[in-house]
Amino acid sequence: MDLAKYLFTRLGQIGVRSVHGVPSDYNLRALDYLKSCNLHWVGNANELCSGYAADGYARVKGVGALISSFGPGELSAINAIAGAYSEKIPVVHIVGTPPLKAQRAGACLHHSLGDGNFGVFADMFKNITAAKVNLIDAATAPQMIDSALRECILKSQPVYISLPTDMVSAQVPAPEHPIDLSPPIYEASSESAVVDQVFSRIESCRRPLILVDGFTARYGVLDELDQLVRATGFTTLTTPFGKSIVDETIRNFCGVYLGSAGDLALQSWIHDCDLVLYFGPEPSDGNTFGFSAVPNPDVTITFEGNSTRIGAVETPCSVKSILTKLLARLDKSSITTKEGYQHRPSEAPRAVDRDRIIDHASFWPYISRFIRSEDVLLTEPGTATYGSPALTLPPSTKLINSSRWLSIGHMLAASQGAALAQRDIAEVDGRPPGRTILFEGDGSLQMTAQAISDIIRNKLDVIIFLLNNNGYTTERVIHGFSESYNDIQPWRNLQAANYFGADLDDASYAVRTFSAANWGELQDALNHAGLQAGNGLNIVEIAMDMGDVPEALQRLAHYVSKRNSGDK
Amino acid sequence: MDLAKYLFTRLGQIGVRSVHGVPSDYNLRALDYLKSCNLHWVGNANELCSGYAADGYARVKGVGALISSFGPGELSAINAIAGAYSEKIPVVHIVGTPPLKAQRAGACLHHSLGDGNFGVFADMFKNITAAKVNLIDAATAPQMIDSALRECILKSQPVYISLPTDMVSAQVPAPEHPIDLSPPIYEASSESAVVDQVFSRIESCRRPLILVDGFTARYGVLDELDQLVRATGFTTLTTPFGKSIVDETIRNFCGVYLGSAGDLALQSWIHDCDLVLYFGPEPSDGNTFGFSAVPNPDVTITFEGNSTRIGAVETPCSVKSILTKLLARLDKSSITTKEGYQHRPSEAPRAVDRDRIIDHASFWPYISRFIRSEDVLLTEPGTATYGSPALTLPPSTKLINSSRWLSIGHMLAASQGAALAQRDIAEVDGRPPGRTILFEGDGSLQMTAQAISDIIRNKLDVIIFLLNNNGYTTERVIHGFSESYNDIQPWRNLQAANYFGADLDDASYAVRTFSAANWGELQDALNHAGLQAGNGLNIVEIAMDMGDVPEALQRLAHYVSKRNSGDK
Repeated sequence: MDLAKYLFTRLGQIGVRSVHGVPSDYNLRALDYLKSCNLHWVGNANELCSGYAADGYARVKGVGALISSFGPGELSAINAIAGAYSEKIPVVHIVGTPPLKAQRAGACLHHSLGDGNFGVFADMFKNITAAKVNLIDAATAPQMIDSALRECILKSQPVYISLPTDMVSAQVPAPEHPIDLSPPIYEASSESAVVDQVFSRIESCRRPLILVDGFTARYGVLDELDQLVRATGFTTLTTPFGKSIVDETIRNFCGVYLGSAGDLALQSWIHDCDLVLYFGPEPSDGNTFGFSAVPNPDVTITFEGNSTRIGAVETPCSVKSILTKLLARLDKSSITTKEGYQHRPSEAPRAVDRDRIIDHASFWPYISRFIRSEDVLLTEPGTATYGSPALTLPPSTKLINSSRWLSIGHMLAASQGAALAQRDIAEVDGRPPGRTILFEGDGSLQMTAQAISDIIRNKLDVIIFLLNNNGYTTERVIHGFSESYNDIQPWRNLQAANYFGADLDDASYAVRTFSAANWGELQDALNHAGLQAGNGLNIVEIAMDMGDVPEALQRLAHYVSKRNSGDK
Repeated sequence: MDLAKYLFTRLGQIGVRSVHGVPSDYNLRALDYLKSCNLHWVGNANELCSGYAADGYARVKGVGALISSFGPGELSAINAIAGAYSEKIPVVHIVGTPPLKAQRAGACLHHSLGDGNFGVFADMFKNITAAKVNLIDAATAPQMIDSALRECILKSQPVYISLPTDMVSAQVPAPEHPIDLSPPIYEASSESAVVDQVFSRIESCRRPLILVDGFTARYGVLDELDQLVRATGFTTLTTPFGKSIVDETIRNFCGVYLGSAGDLALQSWIHDCDLVLYFGPEPSDGNTFGFSAVPNPDVTITFEGNSTRIGAVETPCSVKSILTKLLARLDKSSITTKEGYQHRPSEAPRAVDRDRIIDHASFWPYISRFIRSEDVLLTEPGTATYGSPALTLPPSTKLINSSRWLSIGHMLAASQGAALAQRDIAEVDGRPPGRTILFEGDGSLQMTAQAISDIIRNKLDVIIFLLNNNGYTTERVIHGFSESYNDIQPWRNLQAANYFGADLDDASYAVRTFSAANWGELQDALNHAGLQAGNGLNIVEIAMDMGDVPEALQRLAHYVSKRNSGDK
């Protein structure tokens, strides 16, 4: 079969049903093959949006893909790829490159630097991809594709595949078997030794904690982890990045750990723990509130996807295998009751005054009532991300955020990908998809506003709660609160669907806009049956005070500000 | 003085009056110094726009600058920086980076890959900048800044300057002298030898040609070149990239050379030339129409900024010095009359039918009458760039386009920078600025639509002729004319100013929109006094047929299509 058909067949086999990207003369011939491979072409307005959206798609569907083009196209997407690498998201980035003949002749081509070097842009992706392959030879191309896709899935990181225009229809054998995606197998004896140690520590500890961070979601162990939390009854927390991984209705779930930016009694309680089972750590300054939420390494057992660390000893192993064996052991034993944190149930949402402006302290508990099982929630870096720990989530919700990369505009475009992934999953499963709900900021939205056009073009169902606080509030609380560099041009955000060309009379794709200058207007919006259904494009613009930030962010900002000035 | 003050003082000294960029916690403390250094902060909606706009500013003002941030910010701008490198534009890219203390500790910081490597993104800029410096030491920082800025100006290429947050207020000596920007001096004897040879070839030739390409605009020799064209009376052509460098009212100016995509009689005439003086070559496939417009090297003398090539011999020299000496020789001699191309005066614009749709063949001659001296024109890659050779320009106009990088969306954001540069120049000169006129495409606009917000925020005067041909027409004529991947979401483009928050009642900043579905509507728009004045934001949306392209583009597309499929 033709090489492009091989590539797209493989993409389909690993779970991609929709491909993001932007056309260009160096990739057009490849795009011809999408339809016959049953892949939906998204057609983004720009490449940065396509990269972020493929990332959002992968966070829901397990893998995402985009097609860009040599030079300007791929470089426009590079921020998104670096972000996917930083946060371990499996994104396949296919780059259409000039014909090999011209490359080999060192021709001075458009989209190049003019120096005959056609590897210079690919090299920029070297440190932000798990694999980088260039399909210049039909004899090796299938194996290179398979190997790159395997790395993408197993390492949960982006990969880069160059496809020269004149290789698109090169003949290769059709694939005979699915790609081998079986995880590596580790030595049983060393895994058993780890299980023994963990079990023994569980038996002997007095005050244990299970701390679940966001990378846990990449390891395919959510069921096992759920069983562990239930079976042990140990006090369980997530990080902000890990929120939604643990069913928040489990009685020993005690919320999100914010270190010194949160409940100091909790921090003090954790300080005295003698065992912390720490899953999927992402120990960056933001996620750990200036490293104040990193548990004491002396009492911590750390579980990554393919290793466990006990004290100074790191053992290569499968965390899935470890958990399975550990659960079997726990099943046959009874462990003594341990000290638990006196969990204060989350406050009932406070009564709100219909005439007053909406504030972070009340907003997140309040909006929690709007959230339903199967919803996918996204929070944009900024006040939304630092407000969302105060959400109370029903079971089977998924919260997507960025923890380390923190590129504003990321989650708006990712919400397009997430909504599409939900639709693609539902089409296979035959059950209705959950809603896609984005909590967005006004400054962030301006970065990637085109994503709203992509949502409309693909008739995706998205609810956007736009927290409009009149500029870069997160920057304001770090430095230069009233400086004009923290201002933005004020947009008429509710005109977005009109500008981006939505058919406002299309009964099959509703567009709804709501302005919420106060609690009353928000209540009315939330009572709207269409908004509750979440079909079509829904934008609820919520006015917030310029200086209103979640308390944890205020504390983190104080830390960052001191550090940036050299004081820390 | 504080290091940031030193840096911004130097920026001001080399000609920067406005700085583009986006705030971020890693650059906020530096931004505090802008005002006191009399630098205007643009405040772009995203970093790609800031990079393109700094490039557009530099194309008019001679140098541009942007401030981004470590990680996501700088990577969002990298496409623009690569483009500036490819097309030799002096752009200073300042990147706010994490505090040195945290970098040296290898801390896991936000905006990083989490691996403690803080050089990984800077390294990506290595091959697309003339200099890359990291201000980690107050003792060396001033010299590093001066050296980088010197490289930027003299090489006419972007440079990259990392500024850690805790170095912003490091103490450095105030600059005592302006930066030494004097060009390198070459051996007088070898320059004289080159002048002798060129003069001798000029004396002895039968059929000479002066061919002016776009990089000539980077060498500071426009006056000397103008004198050469007038003094010799030789047939003179520009390339598409070189358009507007030569005064088109000079009688021996014969238009734009399109190789085999243009006038075949001209190509045949050039084929028989025995001397081509080729200035500032940019020999990419697009600019030379599949290399068909590259002159015969056997008869060509090539002038770059710092070298001249005669036959196989390249001599380092100053082209400015060479031209000055050559003009002095020509002044004292009389050269015999040479064969000239029988220049057919450009066709008078055809009569147009008010009810008919606007087409490329008539549009460019027609719109030429709208253009005035001192206007700065920009053409977006796509049909606009390939249509613009048919413009007839009055003296002292400047046409800005992309020749090799061809990143769509580039010129929309560059028009923001160009308009600001015109205003900054006018404020110093005390005379009214020329208009900024952009010829834009509908697909391109979607890439960087935020630039319209930046234009409004900065109250810049721009006229946008939006050629709306319903999708990626340039891609359509290359491959997949009717394929849906070449479609775009149709936007309501005339709603842009409304969406992007322009005050529609502000008498000091007019917003005008015009829809031109046919020639009559275009005529009416062009008769509008406000549009003619060009103040405020003006958008004229011109409907064009999806398949209507300039003839030269049709021919180029045929070539590219064959090459991409491996046939060439």
